[in-house]
Amino acid sequence: MADYQAPLRDMRFVLNEVFDAPSLWASLPKVAENVDPDTADAILEEAGKITTGVLAPLNREADEQGCKWNDGEVTTPEGFREAYETITEGGWNGLGGNPEFGGMGMPKTLVAQFEEMMQGANMSFGLAPMLTAGACLALDAHGSQELKEKYLPNMYSGVWSGAMDLTEPHAGTDLGIIRTKAQPNDDGSFDVTGTKIFITWGEHDMAENIIHLVLAKLPDAPKGPKGISLFLVPKFLVNDDGSLGERNSLACGSIEKKMGIKASATCVMNFDGAKGWLVGEENKGLAAMFTMMNYERLGVGIQGLGAAEASLQSAREYANERIQSRSPNGAQQPEKAADPIIVHPDVRRMLMTMKGFVEGGRAFSTYVAQWLDIAKYAEDDEQRKHAEGMVALLTPVAKAFLTDRGLDTTIIGQQVFGGHGFIREWGQEQLVRDCRITQIYEGTNGIQAMDLMGRKVVGSQGKLYELFAEDMAAFIEANSGDQALAPYLEPLAASLERLSDVSEQVIKQAGDNPAAIGAAAVDYLDLFGYTALAYMWAKIAKAAAPKAEGDTSGFYTGKLKAARFYFDRLLPRTVALAEGIRSGGDAMMAPTAEEI
Amino acid sequence: MADYQAPLRDMRFVLNEVFDAPSLWASLPKVAENVDPDTADAILEEAGKITTGVLAPLNREADEQGCKWNDGEVTTPEGFREAYETITEGGWNGLGGNPEFGGMGMPKTLVAQFEEMMQGANMSFGLAPMLTAGACLALDAHGSQELKEKYLPNMYSGVWSGAMDLTEPHAGTDLGIIRTKAQPNDDGSFDVTGTKIFITWGEHDMAENIIHLVLAKLPDAPKGPKGISLFLVPKFLVNDDGSLGERNSLACGSIEKKMGIKASATCVMNFDGAKGWLVGEENKGLAAMFTMMNYERLGVGIQGLGAAEASLQSAREYANERIQSRSPNGAQQPEKAADPIIVHPDVRRMLMTMKGFVEGGRAFSTYVAQWLDIAKYAEDDEQRKHAEGMVALLTPVAKAFLTDRGLDTTIIGQQVFGGHGFIREWGQEQLVRDCRITQIYEGTNGIQAMDLMGRKVVGSQGKLYELFAEDMAAFIEANSGDQALAPYLEPLAASLERLSDVSEQVIKQAGDNPAAIGAAAVDYLDLFGYTALAYMWAKIAKAAAPKAEGDTSGFYTGKLKAARFYFDRLLPRTVALAEGIRSGGDAMMAPTAEEI
Repeated sequence: MADYQAPLRDMRFVLNEVFDAPSLWASLPKVAENVDPDTADAILEEAGKITTGVLAPLNREADEQGCKWNDGEVTTPEGFREAYETITEGGWNGLGGNPEFGGMGMPKTLVAQFEEMMQGANMSFGLAPMLTAGACLALDAHGSQELKEKYLPNMYSGVWSGAMDLTEPHAGTDLGIIRTKAQPNDDGSFDVTGTKIFITWGEHDMAENIIHLVLAKLPDAPKGPKGISLFLVPKFLVNDDGSLGERNSLACGSIEKKMGIKASATCVMNFDGAKGWLVGEENKGLAAMFTMMNYERLGVGIQGLGAAEASLQSAREYANERIQSRSPNGAQQPEKAADPIIVHPDVRRMLMTMKGFVEGGRAFSTYVAQWLDIAKYAEDDEQRKHAEGMVALLTPVAKAFLTDRGLDTTIIGQQVFGGHGFIREWGQEQLVRDCRITQIYEGTNGIQAMDLMGRKVVGSQGKLYELFAEDMAAFIEANSGDQALAPYLEPLAASLERLSDVSEQVIKQAGDNPAAIGAAAVDYLDLFGYTALAYMWAKIAKAAAPKAEGDTSGFYTGKLKAARFYFDRLLPRTVALAEGIRSGGDAMMAPTAEEI
Repeated sequence: MADYQAPLRDMRFVLNEVFDAPSLWASLPKVAENVDPDTADAILEEAGKITTGVLAPLNREADEQGCKWNDGEVTTPEGFREAYETITEGGWNGLGGNPEFGGMGMPKTLVAQFEEMMQGANMSFGLAPMLTAGACLALDAHGSQELKEKYLPNMYSGVWSGAMDLTEPHAGTDLGIIRTKAQPNDDGSFDVTGTKIFITWGEHDMAENIIHLVLAKLPDAPKGPKGISLFLVPKFLVNDDGSLGERNSLACGSIEKKMGIKASATCVMNFDGAKGWLVGEENKGLAAMFTMMNYERLGVGIQGLGAAEASLQSAREYANERIQSRSPNGAQQPEKAADPIIVHPDVRRMLMTMKGFVEGGRAFSTYVAQWLDIAKYAEDDEQRKHAEGMVALLTPVAKAFLTDRGLDTTIIGQQVFGGHGFIREWGQEQLVRDCRITQIYEGTNGIQAMDLMGRKVVGSQGKLYELFAEDMAAFIEANSGDQALAPYLEPLAASLERLSDVSEQVIKQAGDNPAAIGAAAVDYLDLFGYTALAYMWAKIAKAAAPKAEGDTSGFYTGKLKAARFYFDRLLPRTVALAEGIRSGGDAMMAPTAEEI
């Protein structure tokens, strides 16, 4: 098994050459005061060292050890506490955080690269900083000044970690029916009582305190999603001087035995009149959660991407080393008993498919991060509003498409290893098991598709979709004279037209058939994702083409060949997806429950 | 988690109504002497009881326990020894075996249903009877009368089990480079020395003896695949009176830690001058192995199918019970806090996709089994030869397509459960982990695709392909006047034409570009599989249509609706596959290793 190496060269290519992120940063004053190209590059370099040198080596053994629960306490696998200390000392928990409270204020375009490295190196571990960053975002956006001052600095530093407590045994997707209750006290605090499940890193031994953001219902709250409030509930109460006080009445009842991310603790959390404080307004807890959702959902997409990159690295190395059978074009290494399997067309199909998803996916995650940066930091209202629309539209695609293709990629990477791919010590099967959860949590990919198709595309009557279509159309138009891009622009335009047609058709169908949205949703998100990645590959080709001539490293010429592979072999899937969607939803709505 | 229930109703439908297997059996005298419809039905019923009642309940806990290795001995999980005894007492190990040596002589069309139940109920366990049956087949086809008399009766009864020892650390797909040696002794026996890996049930505590069929090289054997011989090497030597003699010099060095099928032992087997006997001719070991390959490969396909059926059963039950959110068409169960999730179009998409693969897959496995029966038992040479051609062509499709769609199906079934799908106690994630190996062993699915595209389609210059195309065309032609089939026949004809076009094109390409075969192979097998399943769904519709009117159970009307779903939403994938293949292999052959 190859050890994971942070793919810095490819990340720099995407950041600097495909997207020219430094120019974007310079154009956003609030970003420019925190980062310049040299700082950004130094951060990348250091992130590469820590993820490659500290987190990756723990990944395999931690999967075997798992977390241990004993009487409410959770013990993490060997090395996790030390690694957490390293991450904390480096300030990585607060990389994208608000500088007013100790965050580093780095743009998401840069933070996304760090996240990919961390998740690719060790997803179980990576969930801890990820959840903390998510909790910080919600708190920063909706908490009172007092709460922010009291909690954010220690969370950004990582001395305290964060957890998000949403799901209950009977309420997952449907948070409107949660039962956890919050009873107001005279001092402005609340007593929170109820049971939450699937709470990632809800309890552990790496941080001094754990700050839970808990969804609960106030007495007499309206029924359904409009009666949910958000509360901050710390594991240890915090004194006014910032020191830790008594233990709050909450406890981890057990941890789950899972398929993957075994080195992370997935907790049942019991709140028994635990003291909490309201974050944001009463009954507006769901809206407060959704503030951080766009970041978290992109973060989960990036987990899929990280696992896929890790799998590709190992598969590529194995394919170059493992010798087995001869090339169809005759022996390539006649001095050996057989040729390395990378000579075989089908092994190349597997590796090129992986490369297509990983590198196209990285460009896409950076593209979405760019819109997040503009939405957050642009000073012009119009520009910010436009970017917010893009973020709203693209976030479900990033979450679901990057994780769906992430799983595909790790499964292919496992297949490259043949029988060895099934054996735990080689590590490829762990990537499949770890990656699998990314399609499920933070809103299942089916829910992402409903969000895209229903709330975003149909909900805006196509207006949000148009933002993206116009961006693609402008790229095609602007490059129509470029010889190097000629092979890509025509199929790109055709797939954009296909996506636009289908979008329009579903908007029309949904008018008198609300089930049409759900019937189209998952295939539509796939169609959108494949089209968006084609756009990314055209952008990659544009950046690589001028440097390909005379390139002896294979880096730039490889990008052009991978772009061609993507257009030849992966983009055609859009044809089938469009055809399926066009057939409408009757085929799935007609059967009764007994007929299924 | 729903307990697995043998799907007897659906199996009877496929056997009796879709394929009219009883008429086939009656037409084959050697089959007819062993089985009639009543016997077959009683066997199905009993198989259902044992797999549902004995094997399925062990499945979950056995996955947690796994097998234990200690100083060469392997201890199986709780309950496995007792279950093995039950299977042995019932004679299930020899269900399809040669009656001359104690087998029951049942046709594969029937045996396939038992195999599906066993693998669906408990795949780890099911591998033991499966490997024994495979070893018996090879021995029955190629062993001397003496070897057969000495070993087969105890293997058919299950008192002894069988194992296949092919792979070595450096030789998986490429068996031509194995290093295990066989030194002839004066008494006609051989001393076998070498190390084999990935030997399923190579050692365990369930049978009194374990009969290994081992690939090894004789001194001065030609290099490569033409210098490999097959040897029978028992764990305990067998005296002339049939009693067990001394322990042979072979030992299990360790067992693997795996992703799935954890309750089965995957052994490293060390042979240190172990006594063995030649099976078949010198240097023709690979050919002898391939005799049983068609059966074993269908058997692995059936494992994928069994896992998929198990996943569907649980997902269907969960979707009817789990309440979450409201139907897009308004509350369906207003008295509850939410509707059962089966009301949601996307959940229906998932269930109908699973149903499409499972029931279409079962018809396909039975279709292939039917050709195996004709190939083995028909008295007419022409008929037998025709069936042999079909078997050769369809076997790689059955192995790879049923396991690829098997994994897809178990992943979808896991997704239906949301977060609970990732938790071990619910069982859905185990089906994914177990199913995953079926795409890898017994020849990876990439190798199956090479076999189909290279050896079978291109190798016969399309002649083998024509057998299948003619069978499909004849069905379309024969039913062209049938109103009930009208919606299916046109798209069926179109997809047949698509497959034929692509077949012809690759045959042409391969003429001056041998890499074209490998470049097309996997997508071609997929294209073939989706087309074949469309054919199966048309056959299912033909059988169901006359009974659908007035059907209040939903059984027959459900078949028609599922056929429509398959044609509307799954068959379009063939369009994309064909387009990808038509683009040729340059996209994957152009990059250098450095460019990938």
